[in-house]
Amino acid sequence: MRSPFDRRTRAARAALRERGAAAFALTPGANTAYLVDYAADAGERHAFLFLPARGEPILVVPELDGARARTDAAVADVRTWGDADDPLAVAGDALDDCGVAGGEVLLDPEMAARFVLDLQGLRPDCEFALADGALGPLRARKDDAEIDALRRAGRAADRAMRDVRGWGDEAVGRTERELARRIAARLDAHGGHGTAFPTIVASGPNAANPHHDPGERAIEAGDPVTLDFGTRVDGYPSDQTRTVVFAGDPPAEYAAAHETVRDAQRAAVDAVEPGVPAHEIDAAARDVIEAAGYGDAFVHRTGHGVGLGVHEAPTIVAGNATPLEAGMVFSVEPGIYVEGAWGVRVEDLVVVTETGCERLNDTPRGWRI
Amino acid sequence: MRSPFDRRTRAARAALRERGAAAFALTPGANTAYLVDYAADAGERHAFLFLPARGEPILVVPELDGARARTDAAVADVRTWGDADDPLAVAGDALDDCGVAGGEVLLDPEMAARFVLDLQGLRPDCEFALADGALGPLRARKDDAEIDALRRAGRAADRAMRDVRGWGDEAVGRTERELARRIAARLDAHGGHGTAFPTIVASGPNAANPHHDPGERAIEAGDPVTLDFGTRVDGYPSDQTRTVVFAGDPPAEYAAAHETVRDAQRAAVDAVEPGVPAHEIDAAARDVIEAAGYGDAFVHRTGHGVGLGVHEAPTIVAGNATPLEAGMVFSVEPGIYVEGAWGVRVEDLVVVTETGCERLNDTPRGWRI
Repeated sequence: MRSPFDRRTRAARAALRERGAAAFALTPGANTAYLVDYAADAGERHAFLFLPARGEPILVVPELDGARARTDAAVADVRTWGDADDPLAVAGDALDDCGVAGGEVLLDPEMAARFVLDLQGLRPDCEFALADGALGPLRARKDDAEIDALRRAGRAADRAMRDVRGWGDEAVGRTERELARRIAARLDAHGGHGTAFPTIVASGPNAANPHHDPGERAIEAGDPVTLDFGTRVDGYPSDQTRTVVFAGDPPAEYAAAHETVRDAQRAAVDAVEPGVPAHEIDAAARDVIEAAGYGDAFVHRTGHGVGLGVHEAPTIVAGNATPLEAGMVFSVEPGIYVEGAWGVRVEDLVVVTETGCERLNDTPRGWRI
Repeated sequence: MRSPFDRRTRAARAALRERGAAAFALTPGANTAYLVDYAADAGERHAFLFLPARGEPILVVPELDGARARTDAAVADVRTWGDADDPLAVAGDALDDCGVAGGEVLLDPEMAARFVLDLQGLRPDCEFALADGALGPLRARKDDAEIDALRRAGRAADRAMRDVRGWGDEAVGRTERELARRIAARLDAHGGHGTAFPTIVASGPNAANPHHDPGERAIEAGDPVTLDFGTRVDGYPSDQTRTVVFAGDPPAEYAAAHETVRDAQRAAVDAVEPGVPAHEIDAAARDVIEAAGYGDAFVHRTGHGVGLGVHEAPTIVAGNATPLEAGMVFSVEPGIYVEGAWGVRVEDLVVVTETGCERLNDTPRGWRI
């Protein structure tokens, strides 16, 4: 039986040949984790996975990461360079051995400019384009093992969320950062591995910024608090958001807006099924929020694909006509943001099934603790 | 009086003119924090700071980050795009308004390939190169406020390190990940802001990997444990490493190797003064370790510059002839790594002074608790 990595690199090579491209040039991260089980973070040192349309992949890493690469990566040919060596000599040889002399090289969209310009310099006769077009569709359709990991990550985060609700009054007077730290501990306690992205704890007026960085503001009674966090299980992340009020009563318009966001989220989830274009899911949520008069306050797209990357295909946004397919996993996260006052967002991950979808999160969605 | 940001953007423009380049194209991160006080993380959405050789900077950000950009950034011209808009239309207009029609554009080395290729597509007549050459020397020489922030970050980490030593026996039986979480809490308790980079807690044989990710291994008596962590104060990071034995006695060869690493670190620090080429600091450490017979086990360079970026100029490595200058800040972190057995690293940050250097860390360097 082939390993999933063998299946995936074969599919990736087929995608290259279909496009007529010469090779992928990837950077350690989600793409290398997906294709060859190498999940190191890209650092400041040169590291590349070269996967040619025909032939075997070559992984080039700094000597520092050599032992890990040789142990972890499903790649027979791992080459290293030391801090006193020229990494481009090693990369150039690897490109030669992959037979990449011209044609199109598909770059990891996350590759840092320092490496992009180096590769362009090494291969002035190649055309460079992004790898998303070829790899995105493969990664977007999750296999059963991937969905299982995503489900387990969702469950760990749900349990942490239940603990958070349990804090009630006790959360009042604590700072956003303190809550963020406690959330991290609860995620680990429930079997998660760290935080999948920077935790958002946004209280009171701070919640008007969808990307608020937890700070020194202490939670007050009556504050709506947006809690957006995730953890990883077997490398796959969770991503969910709840907006709760730990004690006291929120402003009346907040309670009504929260109801609107829940309705919008439900409408969007209900619209998910294979064949529906991604933009229709966005429209389903947006219509509800616009009808409630908050159209301008829903300042972001409705969702993003989730897999080894926290943000991947399909993006749930106006203009994206990609038809949904069974196995796709994405967030559904409408929100309303009122500058200087408050914000609301309700988010779950869903996996597209043959007939509709399954939510990967299952905790109460209301603001009341 | 000019703000530091005004001074820095003027110096950056002067560096462009000296090089004959047209503009910087930067991505949110350390460079934008340095130049215009905008410290957001680069996300998956298009965001650029364009700074032309002549004329005012333009900051392009997703609408989601618009409020923050308008509040934080020392840039009068902030432009936003919504999730349903084309960010390249906004970026193209900004380049037009910066007068960038041809010539050389200097890219943020951290900019993701997805944005690099987009800019190259928008300006096919421009040459693209990295911004380090022009910006690196400015950022490498820290001003007094920067050094003060680095000093305070070092102090917060030192206090956390003293707490960690205090754990003694209590650390035995706890996992690496648990210790990493506790370290994060101690950093915050001493006035740090989060972790500046992923904390390394590498116990026993795991310490043979300089980049070990804290895992489920529980600390045993007699284990050497490498602790490499940092926090931020006013945006500036600390970075120090100690290798300790919480209880029991380490292998005899470990104790001797630890002494060698301390000697190597001292020799390197003693060699620091203005005018000395960076590679001599590397050689000073490496000579000591080679003389002890561990040359092949010191698998990385001796250090890296530290500022708003945790890794910046000057790199302390063979082949880097950059002469040290007063105000430069870098790590001095020799190590010995024996696969399957143990590892040792001792690291402090130093700031180059007019006559030598000052260490920014001041906690015991021995392995004994």
